Amino acid sequence: MASTVIQNATRPLRIGMIGAGVVGGGVYEIIMNRLGGGSGGSSRNNNTPIITKICVRDASKARDFHIDSTATEVVTDVTSIINDDNIDLVLEVMGGVGLAKVAVMESLKNGKSVVTANKALIAENLQEIISVVDEVNRDGKKAVKFAYEASVCGGIPIIHTLQSGFKGDIINEVMGICNGTTNYMLGKMEEGADYDEVLKEAQDLGYAEADPTADVEGHDVRAKIAIIAKLAFGTNVDVNTIPCMGITNISVVDFEYAKLMGCTIKLVGTACRQSEFGEHDGALSVYVSPKLVPNGHLLASATGCGNAVAIDSANLGITSYTGPGAGRYPTANSIVSDVMRVANNTANAQPFPLLSSIEIDNDYVSAFYIRISFQDGLGIVRTVGELAQSQGVSINSILQNPITDRMNAATVVTTEPCKYSQIKVFCELIDEADFVLGPPVFMPMITDY
Amino acid sequence: MASTVIQNATRPLRIGMIGAGVVGGGVYEIIMNRLGGGSGGSSRNNNTPIITKICVRDASKARDFHIDSTATEVVTDVTSIINDDNIDLVLEVMGGVGLAKVAVMESLKNGKSVVTANKALIAENLQEIISVVDEVNRDGKKAVKFAYEASVCGGIPIIHTLQSGFKGDIINEVMGICNGTTNYMLGKMEEGADYDEVLKEAQDLGYAEADPTADVEGHDVRAKIAIIAKLAFGTNVDVNTIPCMGITNISVVDFEYAKLMGCTIKLVGTACRQSEFGEHDGALSVYVSPKLVPNGHLLASATGCGNAVAIDSANLGITSYTGPGAGRYPTANSIVSDVMRVANNTANAQPFPLLSSIEIDNDYVSAFYIRISFQDGLGIVRTVGELAQSQGVSINSILQNPITDRMNAATVVTTEPCKYSQIKVFCELIDEADFVLGPPVFMPMITDY
Repeated sequence: MASTVIQNATRPLRIGMIGAGVVGGGVYEIIMNRLGGGSGGSSRNNNTPIITKICVRDASKARDFHIDSTATEVVTDVTSIINDDNIDLVLEVMGGVGLAKVAVMESLKNGKSVVTANKALIAENLQEIISVVDEVNRDGKKAVKFAYEASVCGGIPIIHTLQSGFKGDIINEVMGICNGTTNYMLGKMEEGADYDEVLKEAQDLGYAEADPTADVEGHDVRAKIAIIAKLAFGTNVDVNTIPCMGITNISVVDFEYAKLMGCTIKLVGTACRQSEFGEHDGALSVYVSPKLVPNGHLLASATGCGNAVAIDSANLGITSYTGPGAGRYPTANSIVSDVMRVANNTANAQPFPLLSSIEIDNDYVSAFYIRISFQDGLGIVRTVGELAQSQGVSINSILQNPITDRMNAATVVTTEPCKYSQIKVFCELIDEADFVLGPPVFMPMITDY
Repeated sequence: MASTVIQNATRPLRIGMIGAGVVGGGVYEIIMNRLGGGSGGSSRNNNTPIITKICVRDASKARDFHIDSTATEVVTDVTSIINDDNIDLVLEVMGGVGLAKVAVMESLKNGKSVVTANKALIAENLQEIISVVDEVNRDGKKAVKFAYEASVCGGIPIIHTLQSGFKGDIINEVMGICNGTTNYMLGKMEEGADYDEVLKEAQDLGYAEADPTADVEGHDVRAKIAIIAKLAFGTNVDVNTIPCMGITNISVVDFEYAKLMGCTIKLVGTACRQSEFGEHDGALSVYVSPKLVPNGHLLASATGCGNAVAIDSANLGITSYTGPGAGRYPTANSIVSDVMRVANNTANAQPFPLLSSIEIDNDYVSAFYIRISFQDGLGIVRTVGELAQSQGVSINSILQNPITDRMNAATVVTTEPCKYSQIKVFCELIDEADFVLGPPVFMPMITDY
């Protein structure tokens, strides 16, 4: 077995932290105060990591956590961390994909392990990260680790579980509620609040950014489900090819219809092997979309900013994991767990241990919910039926609450399982009909659980 | 860092499996067929473990899985495994605490890692296992691992998560539905079936043993919560001191009252630090009891034979884990994950990494539900009130459905948080009253979540 350059019984793991914001502050507090990494820590011993350097943009800026200057040097030049031979592990909590990428890649190349929460960086550079880690460790003289538990579902140990809990298993499907902001917003909309009102509230509470695009358009979930898909199925899925629908089209009316069907609506990242006869041996489909989730389903139990992941596998059937999706201490907790795995030499040698060549086909199969807004008139149901038939879409049910406003009515159609592309064309055709008030809102439904 | 005797890049990990029943068969199939450990496996490589020996009582007995005789020798003498220098890891799936204990301890002493699903063995010998592992590894020449993911909540990775996901956290409480048999039975009782009827059904389905004592009296959960408590709080809790109430006193009437309160009833193992002001910094209480669980609580989502664990911690708040509690492949999956962690050298060096000296006080504090069966008469509520006051028990509510049978009526009292010992005495006193038809049924309630 290759010995590692990092592990050294004579001195503790030395950490350089890049970034000192919300998450970085939490990590510093836990490692230096609670675990005793700081000079004053009572539980200080040679196995406790120390944060010896922090790199920030502005060293004079006030922080909301205390930096112990006897133990930790504050620097403003990232090279003073990534080129420091005394630093074993680089903790990247600055975010972004520019300087952060340089810092991560150079640190790995310099033989340092890296711990990061940066899902966008990972999702966009999966293959490069794997290659660099392999290259650095190739001759067995180094054993750098790349750990990223905090990048997906902040406080849920989903990365580590996927890395080490399914070695003898075959995963069929992973579904995740991976974005706390949109889960909070959908929860409020279920209670009757309007989208715009809820978005403003989420922004006021600090849950949503001033520019909420990454959250509400599903881009954040897309990066996370790409990481999950690579871990669970071993296949690299280009984020740009993942069908991605956010929550901006969802309205209170959809929740009313969902309720009629015993469901709620969640923004779900899905990575699933297609199956013709329930065997889950087909192509891998990865997509992000609001989904109709039955109230009894485990994913429905993620409320507020909570996250949840449900995995369907050959050995286990359904397992699920719920917890906080973000926040200072949940995210810091996952980072500290990774740091301790590196310190104890129990971190996975390969960040993405599974390799496979499963075909990717993101034209996923599902039963769908379609809400059509229209101005009441004759022949609407017939037209919808004809268009469905023309696209080979089999209608399962039609639900229509009594019309109270003939100028702005809605009907909901649910379909038998069919392809995403069929539904897209079907909805485009409906949108062309003269009675329709706008593009239909469609989303997949969880029907078998 | 100590190198391990087990890991050897020139040859795969060699496993001796003791026992070849339901779980053993599943493990054999996964390792030898799916992972390619058998000679015919297409994915065979030097990192894939091989089961080279299986020890059974009767080698001529027919098995429900195929043993590849070119790769695996079937033996009937356990010493031919534990003394075999070519075996790196012993997999104990025979069960029991007699021969199994000898096999586990001797294997460890002989420098072999051990993987087991035997919760009773672990719970009863926690300290001895820790001591032996420490002793064997002391001089750094060996690095035996003791892994036991499958011993608690079969298909849920709760052991590994507690070992590695909370290093920088402080756990306040762990609650687990850890017994599939009783969870199945309680589910059926909620639907209106009688206890005796449900027990017979569970036995017919193979969920319950002919002698169901270990399940229905809570002993199985008691062993599991003792293991969880040691992992989560670092304190060794003698199983014999854990208050343990099973489900034998629960009746359909209790589910009717639970429903009135928006609750269900689950058999829960609890390990919780007491708190006076919500700080969870007091003594550790560990107990097993049916519990009134609000329908919206995560533990309520464990249905059928499913298991669930909810953890409350300082960094994360509530996280939860659900999955199958038992069965061939779920249990085998956890065992295989452990085997692969040993093979990849990522298993925890210490089976119970956390050490602490938290005081234990199993006289736990909770709000309680108490059902009193009585023959209708005058002064009953007054008597109950007087007895409650005499024990310092503060009554929160009294619920009584309209009496239909004056000779066999029931009333339910719920209390403010008080000590288990107070409730026990209170119920003993009620039992002495002449109107009472039998000992009151009491159980703790989850009230804050």
